[in-house]
Amino acid sequence: MSEERTRAGRRGRAMRKRAREAALQDVGKVIRSGIEVDLYRPLGTHEIERIHEAALTVLERVGMGDAIPILYELAANKGCEITEEGRIKFPRALVEDVIAGACRSFVFHGREPEHDLEISGSRVHFGTAGAAVSVPDFGTGRYRPSTLHDIYDFGRLVDRLPNLAWYSRTVVPAEIEDWTAMDLNMAYATAASTTKAIGVSFNEAGNVAPVVEMFDMMLGGEGRFSRRPFCKVHSTAIVPPLKFAPENSEVNVAAARNGMPVNLIIAAQAGATSPASLAGTLVQTTAEALGGLVLINLVRPGHPVIFSNWPFTSDLRTGAFSGGGPEEALLNAGAAQIANWYGLPSGVAAGMTDSKVPDNQAGYEKAITNLLVGMSGANFVYESAGMQGALLGCSYEALAIDNEMMGNILRVLRGIEVTEDTLSVPVIEQAVAGPGHFLGHEQTLNLMQTEYLFPELGDRNTPAVWEEDGSRDIFQRAHERVREILSTHYPQTIAPEADARIRERFDIHLSPEDMRPECARW
Amino acid sequence: MSEERTRAGRRGRAMRKRAREAALQDVGKVIRSGIEVDLYRPLGTHEIERIHEAALTVLERVGMGDAIPILYELAANKGCEITEEGRIKFPRALVEDVIAGACRSFVFHGREPEHDLEISGSRVHFGTAGAAVSVPDFGTGRYRPSTLHDIYDFGRLVDRLPNLAWYSRTVVPAEIEDWTAMDLNMAYATAASTTKAIGVSFNEAGNVAPVVEMFDMMLGGEGRFSRRPFCKVHSTAIVPPLKFAPENSEVNVAAARNGMPVNLIIAAQAGATSPASLAGTLVQTTAEALGGLVLINLVRPGHPVIFSNWPFTSDLRTGAFSGGGPEEALLNAGAAQIANWYGLPSGVAAGMTDSKVPDNQAGYEKAITNLLVGMSGANFVYESAGMQGALLGCSYEALAIDNEMMGNILRVLRGIEVTEDTLSVPVIEQAVAGPGHFLGHEQTLNLMQTEYLFPELGDRNTPAVWEEDGSRDIFQRAHERVREILSTHYPQTIAPEADARIRERFDIHLSPEDMRPECARW
Repeated sequence: MSEERTRAGRRGRAMRKRAREAALQDVGKVIRSGIEVDLYRPLGTHEIERIHEAALTVLERVGMGDAIPILYELAANKGCEITEEGRIKFPRALVEDVIAGACRSFVFHGREPEHDLEISGSRVHFGTAGAAVSVPDFGTGRYRPSTLHDIYDFGRLVDRLPNLAWYSRTVVPAEIEDWTAMDLNMAYATAASTTKAIGVSFNEAGNVAPVVEMFDMMLGGEGRFSRRPFCKVHSTAIVPPLKFAPENSEVNVAAARNGMPVNLIIAAQAGATSPASLAGTLVQTTAEALGGLVLINLVRPGHPVIFSNWPFTSDLRTGAFSGGGPEEALLNAGAAQIANWYGLPSGVAAGMTDSKVPDNQAGYEKAITNLLVGMSGANFVYESAGMQGALLGCSYEALAIDNEMMGNILRVLRGIEVTEDTLSVPVIEQAVAGPGHFLGHEQTLNLMQTEYLFPELGDRNTPAVWEEDGSRDIFQRAHERVREILSTHYPQTIAPEADARIRERFDIHLSPEDMRPECARW
Repeated sequence: MSEERTRAGRRGRAMRKRAREAALQDVGKVIRSGIEVDLYRPLGTHEIERIHEAALTVLERVGMGDAIPILYELAANKGCEITEEGRIKFPRALVEDVIAGACRSFVFHGREPEHDLEISGSRVHFGTAGAAVSVPDFGTGRYRPSTLHDIYDFGRLVDRLPNLAWYSRTVVPAEIEDWTAMDLNMAYATAASTTKAIGVSFNEAGNVAPVVEMFDMMLGGEGRFSRRPFCKVHSTAIVPPLKFAPENSEVNVAAARNGMPVNLIIAAQAGATSPASLAGTLVQTTAEALGGLVLINLVRPGHPVIFSNWPFTSDLRTGAFSGGGPEEALLNAGAAQIANWYGLPSGVAAGMTDSKVPDNQAGYEKAITNLLVGMSGANFVYESAGMQGALLGCSYEALAIDNEMMGNILRVLRGIEVTEDTLSVPVIEQAVAGPGHFLGHEQTLNLMQTEYLFPELGDRNTPAVWEEDGSRDIFQRAHERVREILSTHYPQTIAPEADARIRERFDIHLSPEDMRPECARW
């Protein structure tokens, strides 16, 4: 590279940095998480009613197998028939009663109040989730097993990505074999990484209470977590078709008893563990989600439960899970619509590209799925950012890029404001009578800060300037941005004294050195 | 690369090729161009009415400048006031009458009837357009000036991309300086490249009749073109704000007189040549499109005109055109809605990424804009595929990738079918009572061919298989696919005798050697 080229590159980078900083300051004004949305309805109301009726029929005729003892007991008390094979058949009226009495809205608290999320109606929030087992290495790009460090580092990154509203871990720590150690350390690493609201998962129900104890210690005293629960449990409550997952059922019961909102995930896979027909998959998964809702509400009526129906699809040529196709968008937008029709907090999955890299395929697969579920009013859009390879991996660069995409989607969700002012007839008259353009008009200058979203990573240079600047694509710019953030941003989320006490009480694998700018990883 | 790796790579490619061929055969069953869509309404009906009223006010109070003589004459006959500055002020009633009498639907003919497009209601078709001046070179990737060969080659590619419904040239031939030579040769190269319907443009109105003559010769005799007009004129009819473009006005008049449908393009740029307010830009551009509609309908009432309002946006930090932002999606979806509210054939622009390469940014910017205008029911989605760098370039690989993305969008537009069969209650009962899964169920096997779209270029392998196969992204796969198509696919669209006569009559720059597989370019 010639010296001139290098200087031009540096100048370009400095210009981009300034533009980026200017853009960042504006983001809050142009878009925000949590706006009410009702823009896309893949299902007509009568179609939703038919799906609902069919789901009730399934729960009544087929029922749910593999319940845990407490559910058999509570269900029998409510008049459910329990078959010889151990299937609980739910009367329609019971299910309807549970829907009517279920929690309809709640505040999902951030560690900092600025990150509190109102969960109600069709308010849309994008965030993370996932249990990927691998990470395209930040250095080599090759897929490697994910670690606890990744959980902490992805969280620190999410902490700085304004369009992601909460952080649930996207990968599992493959190096930790002991289930209890895994549960406790995932919770610690997630909570330590960000002041946004978080989500965790549990291998064992017995770890829920200790994690709440840990959170209480972070917050400065017993009982504090239950006052501002900043963490929800992700629990795949069902083994499709139509069986409870016993251990996760116990986790759900423990979460309900410990005041932790439950993200009740239904993860059937059309063509494999649910019907290949899209409508049929919605029938089965709605039945399954209702089954899970009944369980938690029988244990603790009105406990905050997210009706998280994530209908997945199979590539029917191989039977393998596929996350990026258009059928996935339809299914999850339909699932959001159904949950919102029930008036329940809704969660769906989107952004699950099948591509292994954040390439163009990832861009369009994620955009189509995220946009549609956002337009359908899903309260929680899970897996929305970072995921690659049909949920097998989570990529640092993808997380940063997807945050940028989510900005575009949030701007779309805000829509077009039509008022006497915005119709601009006098502005048009002035421009025609005057300069013949609108560049310096007061309206133009005012709307710059409120109407238009400026990209941070997205490139808008001319081809010539772009080539002079090294012909970099968004992956390369994201790579640089991730390194900037992760080499410097170590949020202090736990007071040193509390941290010392937590480390005394629990076997925390992340060392204090792992959590400082001097750490060797970045 | 080891021999084993090479063999694995070959095996992988052969597998992909078979999967691709299988997928291609299925496409027709799962998706199709031209379905009726009403899925997204960024504007409420009352908001459209307000925009319409404001547009009529603008036409009445501000009017349109720089008309051509015939329009001044016809407008004066209709009672329009013509100001001292030469602005025509259009009475509301005249505009309303023109809307009521305008062409509301037509068949846009392909050279082959299988490619005929029904243009009516909210039927959605994706296709190309553009006047890019450069092409990222297929070999080096560096931007170079576009040529007549590119026009021919892009058309041959579109001819094989099933989700693109027509071909209008995406680039201009930078090497041709003479305007008449450019008009004639663009028309020839475009028509020679594909049997799909096409679009052309003219620098000079006097070239319209000769091109129709050329098309008649291709079709085998005088008057044939007017029976099945397979080509429309793209004409940027307005210089915003609110002035006619004189030469293009003459082109429109000539097209109307020669039976060539007119794609009446309005290309204002919010914040520069129209208000920064989105609603204000829709007011001005609606007024401008109505002005153009009046011109053509006064000359030839009921002539097929596409109400092609393409509101562009500026990056207000620089004033430069930006095509990929979310505001662009909102504006064009709103424009489609307004045109459809008038009941007129609607055209909008989408897919205009600002990125210079088909990277992730291009993927999400194109997906968001194309999806939303598709959902809003635009009859013609222009610029939808291939364009890069805010319309400054057209990329071969992008064209192939975007066709794939359009498949996903078309599948979304089809939606979810809810019937007693698709609700699948008996299927669920059978699976639970039987094998516990749906993999071999008759419904699954049947729906494989009709419910699910399988990607051709999109990757669904596991990370391990993908890495073994060379860790290629969709750009690399598209590159290979483009080379396969363009080195072999030379559609014979002009009979040799007709071609000889055309070459006698016109100075055709593409040589017969350029149009054969042995040509050196690919």
